[in-house]
Amino acid sequence: MIVNMLAGATDEQINHIVERIKECGFQAHLIRGEERTVIGVVGNSNQRRSELEALSSAPGVEEIVKISHPFKLAARSVRPEGTIIELGKGVAIGGNDVVVAAGPCAVESAAQISDIAARVAEAGAKLLRGGAFKPRSSPYSFQGLGEEGLKLMRQAADKNGLLVVSEVMDPSQVTLMVPYVDVLQVGARNMQNYHLLRALGEIKKPVLLKRGMSATIEELLLSAEYIMSGGNYNIILCERGIRTFETYLRNTLDIAAIPVIKSLSHLPMFADPSHGTGRRDKVAPMARAAVAAGADGLIIEVHSDPERALSDGVQSLYPDQFALLMKEIRAIAPAVGRRIA
Amino acid sequence: MIVNMLAGATDEQINHIVERIKECGFQAHLIRGEERTVIGVVGNSNQRRSELEALSSAPGVEEIVKISHPFKLAARSVRPEGTIIELGKGVAIGGNDVVVAAGPCAVESAAQISDIAARVAEAGAKLLRGGAFKPRSSPYSFQGLGEEGLKLMRQAADKNGLLVVSEVMDPSQVTLMVPYVDVLQVGARNMQNYHLLRALGEIKKPVLLKRGMSATIEELLLSAEYIMSGGNYNIILCERGIRTFETYLRNTLDIAAIPVIKSLSHLPMFADPSHGTGRRDKVAPMARAAVAAGADGLIIEVHSDPERALSDGVQSLYPDQFALLMKEIRAIAPAVGRRIA
Amino acid sequence: MIVNMLAGATDEQINHIVERIKECGFQAHLIRGEERTVIGVVGNSNQRRSELEALSSAPGVEEIVKISHPFKLAARSVRPEGTIIELGKGVAIGGNDVVVAAGPCAVESAAQISDIAARVAEAGAKLLRGGAFKPRSSPYSFQGLGEEGLKLMRQAADKNGLLVVSEVMDPSQVTLMVPYVDVLQVGARNMQNYHLLRALGEIKKPVLLKRGMSATIEELLLSAEYIMSGGNYNIILCERGIRTFETYLRNTLDIAAIPVIKSLSHLPMFADPSHGTGRRDKVAPMARAAVAAGADGLIIEVHSDPERALSDGVQSLYPDQFALLMKEIRAIAPAVGRRIA
Amino acid sequence: MIVNMLAGATDEQINHIVERIKECGFQAHLIRGEERTVIGVVGNSNQRRSELEALSSAPGVEEIVKISHPFKLAARSVRPEGTIIELGKGVAIGGNDVVVAAGPCAVESAAQISDIAARVAEAGAKLLRGGAFKPRSSPYSFQGLGEEGLKLMRQAADKNGLLVVSEVMDPSQVTLMVPYVDVLQVGARNMQNYHLLRALGEIKKPVLLKRGMSATIEELLLSAEYIMSGGNYNIILCERGIRTFETYLRNTLDIAAIPVIKSLSHLPMFADPSHGTGRRDKVAPMARAAVAAGADGLIIEVHSDPERALSDGVQSLYPDQFALLMKEIRAIAPAVGRRIA
Repeated sequence: MIVNMLAGATDEQINHIVERIKECGFQAHLIRGEERTVIGVVGNSNQRRSELEALSSAPGVEEIVKISHPFKLAARSVRPEGTIIELGKGVAIGGNDVVVAAGPCAVESAAQISDIAARVAEAGAKLLRGGAFKPRSSPYSFQGLGEEGLKLMRQAADKNGLLVVSEVMDPSQVTLMVPYVDVLQVGARNMQNYHLLRALGEIKKPVLLKRGMSATIEELLLSAEYIMSGGNYNIILCERGIRTFETYLRNTLDIAAIPVIKSLSHLPMFADPSHGTGRRDKVAPMARAAVAAGADGLIIEVHSDPERALSDGVQSLYPDQFALLMKEIRAIAPAVGRRIA
Repeated sequence: MIVNMLAGATDEQINHIVERIKECGFQAHLIRGEERTVIGVVGNSNQRRSELEALSSAPGVEEIVKISHPFKLAARSVRPEGTIIELGKGVAIGGNDVVVAAGPCAVESAAQISDIAARVAEAGAKLLRGGAFKPRSSPYSFQGLGEEGLKLMRQAADKNGLLVVSEVMDPSQVTLMVPYVDVLQVGARNMQNYHLLRALGEIKKPVLLKRGMSATIEELLLSAEYIMSGGNYNIILCERGIRTFETYLRNTLDIAAIPVIKSLSHLPMFADPSHGTGRRDKVAPMARAAVAAGADGLIIEVHSDPERALSDGVQSLYPDQFALLMKEIRAIAPAVGRRIA
Repeated sequence: MIVNMLAGATDEQINHIVERIKECGFQAHLIRGEERTVIGVVGNSNQRRSELEALSSAPGVEEIVKISHPFKLAARSVRPEGTIIELGKGVAIGGNDVVVAAGPCAVESAAQISDIAARVAEAGAKLLRGGAFKPRSSPYSFQGLGEEGLKLMRQAADKNGLLVVSEVMDPSQVTLMVPYVDVLQVGARNMQNYHLLRALGEIKKPVLLKRGMSATIEELLLSAEYIMSGGNYNIILCERGIRTFETYLRNTLDIAAIPVIKSLSHLPMFADPSHGTGRRDKVAPMARAAVAAGADGLIIEVHSDPERALSDGVQSLYPDQFALLMKEIRAIAPAVGRRIA
Repeated sequence: MIVNMLAGATDEQINHIVERIKECGFQAHLIRGEERTVIGVVGNSNQRRSELEALSSAPGVEEIVKISHPFKLAARSVRPEGTIIELGKGVAIGGNDVVVAAGPCAVESAAQISDIAARVAEAGAKLLRGGAFKPRSSPYSFQGLGEEGLKLMRQAADKNGLLVVSEVMDPSQVTLMVPYVDVLQVGARNMQNYHLLRALGEIKKPVLLKRGMSATIEELLLSAEYIMSGGNYNIILCERGIRTFETYLRNTLDIAAIPVIKSLSHLPMFADPSHGTGRRDKVAPMARAAVAAGADGLIIEVHSDPERALSDGVQSLYPDQFALLMKEIRAIAPAVGRRIA
């Protein structure tokens, strides 16, 4: 932490800051420049760090600059070789293989999920995605089939050699979902639902944690840290588009977040080009871009009849389009030293 | 809803859209321009509206433009005269009075909360704010005193003739909190926590709903709609800063959201200049701006010893600064036809 | 400047940075923390500063944090009492008076500008605004009357005791415009047109410099610095709305930029609630908010027949609305220790 | 254009809008829904379109929705097969080949530019980039070598079989630059400098037009339209990063803009991963992503001694890194049906 004093700060103001730094259990290093004084803070006392931060409004202080990242367990330095998460059935996330999850936005019926599961498995997906509990911004939209949806998805996945990933929305759903799914997904709107994050820290089931629409990269890693600090280290991060002034597409898929997070953290990193674009015809180019930028996997919406889908039909690929996309990314993966099994 | 066809859309493509509109129970009105065809959709069938939306990726379609707002109960037209929420002790939100809530970010001790309560009451605050459960982006920060904090806050408020507003973070806390507080606050990070919103729809206690950091005005109103659709109409909205590229302050307080929401909705609208700026010396100017723009109330952080506050000290006013601010806004309120009691 | 080394940086990497700092003519101060090393850079050698910045991608470096502001002449410390710009006819910007400029977006005809000038002068405006050269995002829109427009505006202003402010778009227009106007306005799209800024540095005529739609506060001050470094210190800054994800209004008027800039710089600060909102019915609340937040003046679009205006009719006030707004802000100004003459 | 009336709009208000639409030379089509009335506007009268837009603040109007794009000449429908720009020396932009421009941010000396030109040519670049006139946000930074820089760049390019692209900042530089360069670049800050755009419309030299930091995709196409409406159709567009709340990297490279613009327009589309990231180690992943998403070319900063570069050293690749990147994108191009010669 660096305290940057104002150009005209008085000695009294500087001394007050130095004293407060010591009171909080840290050491203070003064650097007196020609124009202003800067105070380096050294030490490691998490509990009183927030008191130090309050000094940024103290008289004579211009700003406080944080130097170390607030996440520790998620930092790349903890596991420089990177985390590989074994999901079973020979599927590992974060290793050499780029892994693809595909399926409908929401499970709608046995026929629907079973048909789609067969098609995506054939094209090379390793996980079946599908929502049983749906977070909908309108209270008047379809809210999902609940446990029945989970059952249907598990059956469809098992029949086709797939694993299951599905969204958990509330701590109360965790116990119910664990037997049905292989990966619990946390949606963008829940990235900072700390009760949910804590509940997921107490289990061992892998978690796919999506970046919030306006979350910084650091905040995403801090949410991962919440889960990890509870004891669950099996976290897969996922870029799914951020909110910017550009509104031609639903979101701006921040492809650069992939290499940035791969540098900052040892956790595997997915991309979701379906929510990241919100338009069917833009999913494939962005999926290719994500693989080229180093993503460890993709999560993609596929529906056999998108025009009649109960949600997100607008961004769901037809099964044939998905198969074509798999072919394209199979050709791209080797260029970045990866493969799609 | 308007379907905007591409300039070169074929008759077959146009006919397909018209048929799908009818299948979903709506009527289609064609407007053929010189350059392109536009299809107006008329009708009212909420359930199949999402199927219509899926048409925006259909061949020949450029985009679908939504015409009506997705919120109904929150719309100004439902109650053109505006909602007034009576909190008791003669305090009403949304009427002629601009109402101020003030207090520390977090309840820390009996002495702390009781001292601050006395000071803010004396200056003219009507509600005591303070967190017992704290949503902290780091798992290593102070997480609040829990029920003990609520008790201390209730006592301090009662002794000083104040009402209590405090943040609820999870459906499981609702029952616990109701006896202690007069208003339940939903924080920015929980604005789209639908389980929490639904739980709040089932009680009658007024709710102060804060806008998410990247939530549009429409999404904020849709979250209010979630609560209202459960039967609780006592919603106070609150602007608390959005996330933009400008990072000199912690957030960009969207003052314009105040008059915009007052036009779109009948619900009262607060502003939170403390979180909206994140710096003590910017709280007063933004509080004044909010009142000048028509806010129904303010929620402001005040602490007797901000440098030693366990959270948000950087943006907390000293009690004297708060008293001065109350004087300033007392002078501004009449210019917009309001008063501060 | 602070060089923040990675947690695992080697001694060799640290030494390399220290040597480069010295080579560039600065001193290096090492602070070795428990987790990482931080290097403070002290000295004042503008020319080689960019070489230092290039070190932020050097091996072992996490980031470089700039401590001092890149603007010097515009900094508050240069003139702590604030700059007052005397425009003549008893009008001073940056003093006790809040000064209002008003008029149409574009000068359209003698009758139009003369009618509007009379109305805004009567209501209390001190400057007449109006465009003779129009920056239009479409090549197919009305581009302005040119010099003829300037003449008409000058006549209308003189007849009503007003000063004139009008936009300059290119260095080639400066000489032409100077005789007709009292303040040259630089539009948001030209805030970083360095050729134009340099041309304005060579004259003495006051400049109203608008913040670019995506310019940070620091960049606005740096553009002012461009003009000032040429010798023209008569700069009035102006907040006119930034671009954010919120699109209900055309822009997000960053009211907080007003108190922030008043702290950072000695230059006067205006607000433009017309472009900042893009909707007639939101101009008045935001104008009031700007005055309450401490603005030194306002620039507002007024048109006698907005529905037939050749540009920006949607955000122009009717003269009666403008007169009412003047009354409101006359009541607010004293609450912040100002007045409207 | 669609006029969306408020739910409670009166017949009088609706009639007023209909009459104004007719007065402006358009036809009005009423669609009366259960909740509100919508008016479709049909016709083609560019000059009075701005009058129609002013109706969006008229009584009873909720909003006006624009249906057709404001750009015409740049629209994909004008040339569905796409534009191919022949630059000479067998280099064509927009065809099957992905074309790479590379070189230093600024030309610094004969030795520097000649060394870099040899290295990038060897690795497969077709154009040499380099600035002779530099737009610098600080007046105290290096401003470029001017015409001398252009001469040095031309010599270095000719010796290595390269073409030249360099930035033009002001209309006054166009005539000077044309003999030295093959492509004139318009920087992000000048994307809406209409005087410059108009000057470029009057020549035939190809223009590389960079997207402004906060420009929408539509605004970028409208700036291209400005140049094209003057008669110069040889426009190459370029995504170079937009400004968002995410500040870990200097900008957010909007990769999705590539496929979006390829759908909306027939113009070729480049990406600039150097400015788009601002960090050397993120340039390669984003360059790969751009090619995978369908970019027609890349423009990349390369410097033999980035730590001593006079500008942008932080984001310049070493020549060896550039050669490796060329190898990677050579492997990716075929996956999207392209090649790198």
